[in-house]
Amino acid sequence: MATPVILVDPLPRTLEQIMAPSVRARLERLGRLVISEARPMNDDEIEALLPHAVAIIGQTAMSAERLERAPRLKAIINVETNFLPNIDYAACQARGIWVLTPASAFAAPVAEATLGLALDLARGISAADRAFRAGTETYGLEANLDTIRFEGAPVGIIGFGDLGRKFRELIRPFRNEVRVYDPWLPAETIERLDCRQTDLDELLERSRFVVVFAAPTTENAHFIGAPQFARMQKGSAFLLMSRAAVVDFPAMIAAACSGHIRVATDVFPVEPVPADDPMRTTPNMVFSAHRTGGTRDALFEIGSMAVADLELILKDLSPQLCRRADPSIAGRLRSQPVSRT
Amino acid sequence: MATPVILVDPLPRTLEQIMAPSVRARLERLGRLVISEARPMNDDEIEALLPHAVAIIGQTAMSAERLERAPRLKAIINVETNFLPNIDYAACQARGIWVLTPASAFAAPVAEATLGLALDLARGISAADRAFRAGTETYGLEANLDTIRFEGAPVGIIGFGDLGRKFRELIRPFRNEVRVYDPWLPAETIERLDCRQTDLDELLERSRFVVVFAAPTTENAHFIGAPQFARMQKGSAFLLMSRAAVVDFPAMIAAACSGHIRVATDVFPVEPVPADDPMRTTPNMVFSAHRTGGTRDALFEIGSMAVADLELILKDLSPQLCRRADPSIAGRLRSQPVSRT
Amino acid sequence: MATPVILVDPLPRTLEQIMAPSVRARLERLGRLVISEARPMNDDEIEALLPHAVAIIGQTAMSAERLERAPRLKAIINVETNFLPNIDYAACQARGIWVLTPASAFAAPVAEATLGLALDLARGISAADRAFRAGTETYGLEANLDTIRFEGAPVGIIGFGDLGRKFRELIRPFRNEVRVYDPWLPAETIERLDCRQTDLDELLERSRFVVVFAAPTTENAHFIGAPQFARMQKGSAFLLMSRAAVVDFPAMIAAACSGHIRVATDVFPVEPVPADDPMRTTPNMVFSAHRTGGTRDALFEIGSMAVADLELILKDLSPQLCRRADPSIAGRLRSQPVSRT
Amino acid sequence: MATPVILVDPLPRTLEQIMAPSVRARLERLGRLVISEARPMNDDEIEALLPHAVAIIGQTAMSAERLERAPRLKAIINVETNFLPNIDYAACQARGIWVLTPASAFAAPVAEATLGLALDLARGISAADRAFRAGTETYGLEANLDTIRFEGAPVGIIGFGDLGRKFRELIRPFRNEVRVYDPWLPAETIERLDCRQTDLDELLERSRFVVVFAAPTTENAHFIGAPQFARMQKGSAFLLMSRAAVVDFPAMIAAACSGHIRVATDVFPVEPVPADDPMRTTPNMVFSAHRTGGTRDALFEIGSMAVADLELILKDLSPQLCRRADPSIAGRLRSQPVSRT
Repeated sequence: MATPVILVDPLPRTLEQIMAPSVRARLERLGRLVISEARPMNDDEIEALLPHAVAIIGQTAMSAERLERAPRLKAIINVETNFLPNIDYAACQARGIWVLTPASAFAAPVAEATLGLALDLARGISAADRAFRAGTETYGLEANLDTIRFEGAPVGIIGFGDLGRKFRELIRPFRNEVRVYDPWLPAETIERLDCRQTDLDELLERSRFVVVFAAPTTENAHFIGAPQFARMQKGSAFLLMSRAAVVDFPAMIAAACSGHIRVATDVFPVEPVPADDPMRTTPNMVFSAHRTGGTRDALFEIGSMAVADLELILKDLSPQLCRRADPSIAGRLRSQPVSRT
Repeated sequence: MATPVILVDPLPRTLEQIMAPSVRARLERLGRLVISEARPMNDDEIEALLPHAVAIIGQTAMSAERLERAPRLKAIINVETNFLPNIDYAACQARGIWVLTPASAFAAPVAEATLGLALDLARGISAADRAFRAGTETYGLEANLDTIRFEGAPVGIIGFGDLGRKFRELIRPFRNEVRVYDPWLPAETIERLDCRQTDLDELLERSRFVVVFAAPTTENAHFIGAPQFARMQKGSAFLLMSRAAVVDFPAMIAAACSGHIRVATDVFPVEPVPADDPMRTTPNMVFSAHRTGGTRDALFEIGSMAVADLELILKDLSPQLCRRADPSIAGRLRSQPVSRT
Repeated sequence: MATPVILVDPLPRTLEQIMAPSVRARLERLGRLVISEARPMNDDEIEALLPHAVAIIGQTAMSAERLERAPRLKAIINVETNFLPNIDYAACQARGIWVLTPASAFAAPVAEATLGLALDLARGISAADRAFRAGTETYGLEANLDTIRFEGAPVGIIGFGDLGRKFRELIRPFRNEVRVYDPWLPAETIERLDCRQTDLDELLERSRFVVVFAAPTTENAHFIGAPQFARMQKGSAFLLMSRAAVVDFPAMIAAACSGHIRVATDVFPVEPVPADDPMRTTPNMVFSAHRTGGTRDALFEIGSMAVADLELILKDLSPQLCRRADPSIAGRLRSQPVSRT
Repeated sequence: MATPVILVDPLPRTLEQIMAPSVRARLERLGRLVISEARPMNDDEIEALLPHAVAIIGQTAMSAERLERAPRLKAIINVETNFLPNIDYAACQARGIWVLTPASAFAAPVAEATLGLALDLARGISAADRAFRAGTETYGLEANLDTIRFEGAPVGIIGFGDLGRKFRELIRPFRNEVRVYDPWLPAETIERLDCRQTDLDELLERSRFVVVFAAPTTENAHFIGAPQFARMQKGSAFLLMSRAAVVDFPAMIAAACSGHIRVATDVFPVEPVPADDPMRTTPNMVFSAHRTGGTRDALFEIGSMAVADLELILKDLSPQLCRRADPSIAGRLRSQPVSRT
């Protein structure tokens, strides 16, 4: 049989970006790599490779027809960490082709930055630095009038996938009571990590820190808006870490402006944010320009997870690290191509 | 026998500041309180109370002569959290009078803020917020060129008392390799908390985050200066959390200015910092105006630790929460009266 | 459309055994239950139900033909916690029918008992009790000549599925160096739980406690025998927690008899063990009659995991708690019907 | 000044027993050792050494008069891990002489064995082994009729010193609700370790596992007797790990005999237990012949703690590892010379 081919079509990423040399070497031991990085792989090339392809690493469109022309194909691994609508998931399922994505690669850096932002909102770190630079700082007790201690404060997590669970692990020493709202999960999954399953309203009303990790779906656009912010306790903190689409963004800005809550956000409805957007001067906010996930180690993690799972699959073992594209879930996620992270 | 008297002389603190009502009620059950909060208790009043005093809560001067005139005295609890030179420690020791201070009351808020500052230096949180407000932000990967992941980075802790140990507990989920330099401790104490005892040079050379909690003593003034900063890896982070006196402050500012290291400091040689001090514009720094410890809960912790230990002492049990003024240590600490925290 | 039917065919278990009343009530809200507990459901009944069945809870044989006659079927949940060969896994895969088993239900009680057995081998608990009852006990230091401290001892785990990982969590406070051998897993999965991936020989040579959780497969019969026991350090402990078939059982008994190692086993080649089997008097062993998993709470866990996942599946969400029958794995496991646990 | 002398009078221990060679080498660097191991040091020798002694490692009687003749003495370290009445504690206090004992050396091995015994009572490990050896074993579910899962069961700890706290750390992964009764401690100390302070009755009534680590004092002889056992829930477990004197031993045996509770004990009113003592056949019990603490590593820990603290003291620093003989406590403990552990 011809040498197995691994079709590498990783844009907007590049192999160099997502694989340390040692990981790439492992990949090369699995088959002949055919790589298209300057542009998406063109259709002729794809067609020529399909008969020999055992795996696709990238975002190549794979209709049912193409799948039929790829009899040896065992795995498609999206390295953008999305599930795109350009794959026939049911046909993959029927064929036993693994469709995977190393989605949790960003969990660690995002969770770490989330804790940094939460502590900033709690203890006023960036505001105090700004005041010091402006010569308007206060000292000691007087400087702590708005301080909330993060330790022991009730925390609410909205969306309890990889990011939420990693964040939960990071805050264990702070002994918070943690509530979780995630309609895709059973109570057991939540309670095993020492959290309480609640509905959204209770979470908003009881938590001093509310963190949103929920991925945007066909069902949850703008599900947190003015009425939800109104439920939060005065002076509480709200952190938006997933996608702008899940909140009513102007309502969030207004809630910070009024002093009702303090807010940190890593995402924005339009990125880059227009230069003259008035939100840039909002008080009680910490801004992060979609930068909590895009660290070098996270990108390398994408590559090492992909290769490790591919090694298993080519030995007829089950993948262990990447997320599987369960058809129901893949259809629900409102994935967009990623431009930056 | 006359009602036992508890002499309360807490300036610069006040009872209201350091005791929640329920804690004050517990204190009142232990004896008759005589309180001087508007000014330090005057000598005549002190002399009149000495024969009946079972405890002093405050910073009253207690010479050997006064101690002789206080035959029922069992405890002196400093609520400034210093050991001042106005007490005859040896005479207290000989009499079995407990001299205590609830020094660890500040450990939790300082450790929490230290982690916030460390994550800020690691992930560029306040700098990114400042850039966003100035309209000069970058996004995604481009915004992370200087990012260090705190998770997994080698950490060095200088001074491993209550603050250092609490910080060590908070960072456990980050799985750092932690080195400790503390010449007052045996290796066993350090290793039990899963840290490695090292000398100062190794700590500086190997750590990506160096945190100073060392209290100023008669022996350690300016022990971290230009040669020590030079040993640190380029781009590493230095956090000064204890007192300005232990470092060569101008050398620290210079090391940040040059871009050799990034720095966060909560303390300054002169506080308030002069309005025109040029350090206010130093890049690669996060400034905190001596505000990491002075939270409401920390002050209440002072009161509840003091009362809990006094309850034990008056039952002839050993105190469990406050630090004891071991004569050797009390003489070494360069305590100053606290004005703000 | 007709009321959805849930076919319940749980032998050798019964619904009462695996579901607390509150869990059963949740199940009844999902569809009309048709239950056969006195005997396996007969073919006629099965055929009559297939058109309406949305789920099967039990071990019913499901050929491709039967699957075709069950157009509404979404899930088959084996409550014996095996994957039996009486299901056409590929056909289920093609149809998107979830084939699941709550395999991890036994992880907690088995892991707990494993630690109990390990501490027994380490500290000689049952042997000392036996000696005391016989009047031959020794005291203090003299009684500890063979003691190994479990704390800090190197541990090796063979098979790192649910059982092995739960055991790993239980022993965290003991600060062991933990090696793992599991050929189905990538290094990443092992390292995330602070263990080291090793080959079998290194694990046997370096560990003072070797614990076998490996499920029997088509590939691993008797893979631990006399040569493997010989590699272990004298006086080390070997615990067999999965199935007798993975070891050379007589060689294991011989290794305990000779005093080379100490052994605990929960499983036997034939159960019940014949009354006159000479192994019953083996020294340096602790015997457990296939009883570490079969606790009431474990059985209830089977039911609550099954129902929680079924609730999700019937909402078109992904199951979260049960193990999925990946075709490759299901074919490899040498499952046998369970009679007792 | 003459070479400092360290008087070593360690019976019933020997230096070899308590110090690894590397630790002994560290001790020898601190002064000239004068050792009496064959018998207690005789008075003449002691008198001759007093003028030069800087430290005593052992149980030498030290009256006020002797202390006066030892002007250079800085530390007395009892290596039996008792505070004996043969020292004038007040005089030591007045002189600032540290009186110490490495009491926590036994905490780790005792806590480990306590968990082993608790799991044995929970899961019936030694009873099942005994049944198997007798050919009367049952299998699977039938063998678990009396099983209690330790995980999640309420635990009560009586006496929360080094042993109790170490045990508390070991059981963290089991997520028990932990109650503590210790009249010498404030609530804060207990709550910091995530336990609840309760009175004795509540602890006995609510806990499924009751563990006694309380040291015998002048106040607590036989404080747990028939009325206390009667408060315990049927089938609960009672573990006696400290000294027989704190319980009504016959009442404890009776409570096991009747089947009301299950019991493990490491201590007995008379040791060795008489050969014909009828308790030897008590059901529902696990017997340990005063052997949980006396491990080689615990004895070495005594030596290394003593030497590490002496190193600090001779540098005028405070000891960090050994327990201090607070006069009030030393007078309350009913210490007896130790013969075996």
